[in-house]
Amino acid sequence: METVLAAHADLAWMLAAFVFVLLMFPGLALYYGGMLGARNVLNMMTMVMVTLGITSVLYVLFGYGLVSGPSVNDWGLIGNPLDYIGLGNHLTDDESGGIQVLYIAAWFILFAAITVAIVASGAAGRMKFSAWLVFAPIWLTLVYFPVAHWVFAADGEGYSGGFLLNDIGIHDFAGGTAVHMNSGVAALALAMVLGARRKRMERPHNVPMALLGGGILWFGWFGFNGSCAGGANFLTQYVVLNTLLAGSAGMIGFAAIERLREGHVTSLGVITGAVAGLVGITPSANAVSPLGALGVGIIAAGVVAFALSFKSRFAVDDTLDAFAVHGLGGIVGTLCIVLFASDAAPAGIEGILFGGDIAILWRELAGIVITCTFSFVMTWLIAKALDKTIGLRVDEETEVGGLDATIHAESAYEIPAAGVGHAPGLTTTPAPRAVSVAHGHAEPVTASH
Amino acid sequence: METVLAAHADLAWMLAAFVFVLLMFPGLALYYGGMLGARNVLNMMTMVMVTLGITSVLYVLFGYGLVSGPSVNDWGLIGNPLDYIGLGNHLTDDESGGIQVLYIAAWFILFAAITVAIVASGAAGRMKFSAWLVFAPIWLTLVYFPVAHWVFAADGEGYSGGFLLNDIGIHDFAGGTAVHMNSGVAALALAMVLGARRKRMERPHNVPMALLGGGILWFGWFGFNGSCAGGANFLTQYVVLNTLLAGSAGMIGFAAIERLREGHVTSLGVITGAVAGLVGITPSANAVSPLGALGVGIIAAGVVAFALSFKSRFAVDDTLDAFAVHGLGGIVGTLCIVLFASDAAPAGIEGILFGGDIAILWRELAGIVITCTFSFVMTWLIAKALDKTIGLRVDEETEVGGLDATIHAESAYEIPAAGVGHAPGLTTTPAPRAVSVAHGHAEPVTASH
Amino acid sequence: METVLAAHADLAWMLAAFVFVLLMFPGLALYYGGMLGARNVLNMMTMVMVTLGITSVLYVLFGYGLVSGPSVNDWGLIGNPLDYIGLGNHLTDDESGGIQVLYIAAWFILFAAITVAIVASGAAGRMKFSAWLVFAPIWLTLVYFPVAHWVFAADGEGYSGGFLLNDIGIHDFAGGTAVHMNSGVAALALAMVLGARRKRMERPHNVPMALLGGGILWFGWFGFNGSCAGGANFLTQYVVLNTLLAGSAGMIGFAAIERLREGHVTSLGVITGAVAGLVGITPSANAVSPLGALGVGIIAAGVVAFALSFKSRFAVDDTLDAFAVHGLGGIVGTLCIVLFASDAAPAGIEGILFGGDIAILWRELAGIVITCTFSFVMTWLIAKALDKTIGLRVDEETEVGGLDATIHAESAYEIPAAGVGHAPGLTTTPAPRAVSVAHGHAEPVTASH
Repeated sequence: METVLAAHADLAWMLAAFVFVLLMFPGLALYYGGMLGARNVLNMMTMVMVTLGITSVLYVLFGYGLVSGPSVNDWGLIGNPLDYIGLGNHLTDDESGGIQVLYIAAWFILFAAITVAIVASGAAGRMKFSAWLVFAPIWLTLVYFPVAHWVFAADGEGYSGGFLLNDIGIHDFAGGTAVHMNSGVAALALAMVLGARRKRMERPHNVPMALLGGGILWFGWFGFNGSCAGGANFLTQYVVLNTLLAGSAGMIGFAAIERLREGHVTSLGVITGAVAGLVGITPSANAVSPLGALGVGIIAAGVVAFALSFKSRFAVDDTLDAFAVHGLGGIVGTLCIVLFASDAAPAGIEGILFGGDIAILWRELAGIVITCTFSFVMTWLIAKALDKTIGLRVDEETEVGGLDATIHAESAYEIPAAGVGHAPGLTTTPAPRAVSVAHGHAEPVTASH
Repeated sequence: METVLAAHADLAWMLAAFVFVLLMFPGLALYYGGMLGARNVLNMMTMVMVTLGITSVLYVLFGYGLVSGPSVNDWGLIGNPLDYIGLGNHLTDDESGGIQVLYIAAWFILFAAITVAIVASGAAGRMKFSAWLVFAPIWLTLVYFPVAHWVFAADGEGYSGGFLLNDIGIHDFAGGTAVHMNSGVAALALAMVLGARRKRMERPHNVPMALLGGGILWFGWFGFNGSCAGGANFLTQYVVLNTLLAGSAGMIGFAAIERLREGHVTSLGVITGAVAGLVGITPSANAVSPLGALGVGIIAAGVVAFALSFKSRFAVDDTLDAFAVHGLGGIVGTLCIVLFASDAAPAGIEGILFGGDIAILWRELAGIVITCTFSFVMTWLIAKALDKTIGLRVDEETEVGGLDATIHAESAYEIPAAGVGHAPGLTTTPAPRAVSVAHGHAEPVTASH
Repeated sequence: METVLAAHADLAWMLAAFVFVLLMFPGLALYYGGMLGARNVLNMMTMVMVTLGITSVLYVLFGYGLVSGPSVNDWGLIGNPLDYIGLGNHLTDDESGGIQVLYIAAWFILFAAITVAIVASGAAGRMKFSAWLVFAPIWLTLVYFPVAHWVFAADGEGYSGGFLLNDIGIHDFAGGTAVHMNSGVAALALAMVLGARRKRMERPHNVPMALLGGGILWFGWFGFNGSCAGGANFLTQYVVLNTLLAGSAGMIGFAAIERLREGHVTSLGVITGAVAGLVGITPSANAVSPLGALGVGIIAAGVVAFALSFKSRFAVDDTLDAFAVHGLGGIVGTLCIVLFASDAAPAGIEGILFGGDIAILWRELAGIVITCTFSFVMTWLIAKALDKTIGLRVDEETEVGGLDATIHAESAYEIPAAGVGHAPGLTTTPAPRAVSVAHGHAEPVTASH
């Protein structure tokens, strides 16, 4: 009974954590949409949001089994979906009091969907929406589901991973491989096949929107990392603190590199640094000390900022920097485990700098190389095959005019410009008192300084 | 003691679920505000937000008792508020460890307020704000509180509903009747009394804002539906998964109809489909299988999309489609129970297609007809009475000029147009390096494709 | 074991509450950013977000100990940080099942960071970003950490406060002193040293953004106040209801004063009223009845609205009204305890109007005076010292041109004006059917009214 009650309390947290992760979808849509030009924002947001639709259907049909089903031949490469098709065999309460198949289905749908949503960023502003609707389910099936099985698979006693975790022995707390490296590398491959945008130098059309999106991502990340502790326990507290610290420190790392190389600190840089720090702590949240988490954040964000400052030299148009932020960020976070994991942390790994065995380096490197290679090659093949058949890229007129208008028959904004008249149709403007009680604009024009 | 501890864990989830629902208010305000023209957005957002103020006061004074108090004469029509006025008799801990009157008050305030907030959408762009401040409390008192009693009333052992649930025997998991049909039909009636806007064809002024609002609604919906399981248990997991699936599938249903009838998929369509799917699953979340939830989402959203494609033929200006989305969506979701409820689902109802008794059809139809008729007639009477006395509609000049400027003495935006100069007052523009580190805009202008 | 299980369930809520508070950072950034002109919004948002980076580093290094460490000499003035440097001595599970040092660190980082983020509002539009990066850590160390120790300090048996709570005997449920009065007064002092903006009368550039920010703040406030009950219990329900009621009633109080003094109700006024009501209930949430919470909200917001209507007479440019909203709001909320605390409420305090002892007035007044005086004097000294050395204020050209462009080398928006062409680069506009399925804009132009 105590076990049931403890599982019950864990479930309360896990449910909340799931809901937090859901908000990452509008968050990512804003984060990416805000950084694009105003004529492609709706296309990007729709590409992100629609991943929920695609992933949900696939997951209920066969995705659950491929990821979490029993490993075929015990190889840890892919799960057997047979028992899980439609989830119909799992609709009864097992009386455990805790999370069960239905929760795990919902939770892992979000993990899968956010991964493919990040991939969408590499195709921003130039991919047919219909091609995305074909690419996304194929990519989920052939790339995400296998890699997720490698690290998130069930073994009958909870979810302890496939061959990457058990045979290679990689340490990955909450998805540095399956989610971040995977999506970052896949975005890069997709961007390569698509080719660069015709107009790469485009100002972000709505930076506050991107900042809000980044802030929401951070909020959701506590659900993401926090749920990987499996309940409301000491480990969760540990992970939540480290997630806060790494995101916070990421701001500092990115800002420092910006300041050194560009002479200023940008708002987009600060939020990008936070995201990079969060990516870095995702694999390492249970393996480093709080001071180590500050280090992970600073280093991951600093490396990402440094890499981005050379961005203009690269021909590949990884439009919203998924490779740098998620790919590099995930790799750096994983290597931070190698360097300064603390054996006092819950994972109990001793980093090389603290006298740990060098073997951890080979294990983590193997995991990185396997994940990145598989993801890159498979994604490139899928994209190339689709490009040769249905065609991935919109025509020039569509691209120049913007995908919102041409593909979606919408335009994002219909906002009168400042000073053009605040009350269209009225010739009078609001009376001066109109602005006298509300915030920040009550004073006469005379300066008092 | 075990009961207390279990209730304690349930409470942890219920508290979180409550907080999720609160975010639906800014979410709805954005969703509606973004779809309107820029000169009415603040009016709409204020109409939505102020429902919290109105409902809170009413609920503490007498709303709690009308909804959840003991049924007068045991008829299940309305509660007796006497014991609950001011909630002063319920300020002590009953030591149950779980949710108590004070929680239920806070929770049901949100349910009531979101319902009347949806009604506001039918009046967008043409109703006096002062009239809204009179209409809303009357509508809550005469329409919402009774209908809520019919389905949410207490019977001394938890909250198991009034006559609609107990005498008619309708199945309504989380408010398909009291919240969705009720608000959708009331919005229609209010829109009829108000008459159409002078300028009905108006572009949404800020689509990303509407998409964010829709995303936030989805987030909050997990609190809404998830809290109706009463705690953190198997049913909650069931409902959360189905809520995710139906929202996801709703995107697909709406997009399919759009594509077939209009030739394109819009971003607003995708998010509207998600909301329609969520409305559909609200009454049915515990009655259908996961595959069934996909069906509910696709069908509810498809029906709503189909209906909206005929919208221009109707004279009634249900401005933001509350009737289609919430009214029709709620009806379709309820009829889905009739058709393909699964007796393996927690509610244990067998749909007609699976061999269930046809009697369920009559029960659900009776519930739908009673709710919709009551809501329509009462709302029409209230609106008509107010129109004849205080007058509901703004004058022509106010409407044409926009309600923000005239009624609220505000204007929503003061944003310089693109290219007009990013640094007003400075003659220099930001140096090129200004955009070189941050995301997505670092490259020289030369295209590399 | 029962204790462990109960602590376990409490932890589930406390974790969720923590995450809610995190969203207050983008919320505050939007709330403040939206009320400023478009050329300073990114600067303001970055000032807010970067407080997380600064506070996290400081807190792990020495902040935790200064706030929650054992009081030096048992004076209750400041904690001893020695044992908590880097938190390395607290990385093991104490097996309590509940919140431990690592949680408290994460939680209190957010409390500290949001406080200094409010202070930033007083400097909007005219402070060097580099000076903010110096001011914020000094202010946290010399002002926030001590005051937080006075009310949030540990005594070895939970967190029951320093001298203000124990020696003065102030009642402050969730941070009326350390968070609200402290930040409000400090923002005032900083604004005084900085001097007024050259152009004080500036319209808010994006009111919907500010409204969203305010709505998110409300959402986060349930985490803020709700976590101060220490778990998921009766008190939490009590506090959550009162927090909802006071925010709701705050809308009404502010709107009433606006209407009386200005003749209209503004959207910014309504959301400002909600925030003022929330500030008012922060110290009093466990001390007043639900009817009392409605009173707190109405009074706090009414007083704030009344004060703001005289704003133009004051020379100090407290740009975003932190002093009025947080300073005055916190003071009024505290005085409401004195007046009408209910001894039936969990805190068990009897207000003077209900026959309580007048001594409570002196205690609360002492707390208010000590907090406000300390905060004002210290902040003024810090700001003055920095102004004389590194200089706080940007030069005239920077201020006139806007801080976004000059300091951050960014501009917030690149949005084409309405009617200027929705598809730049295309000569054709979207086909009419483009708007025919989606919401609210499907009809022919002919009015049907």
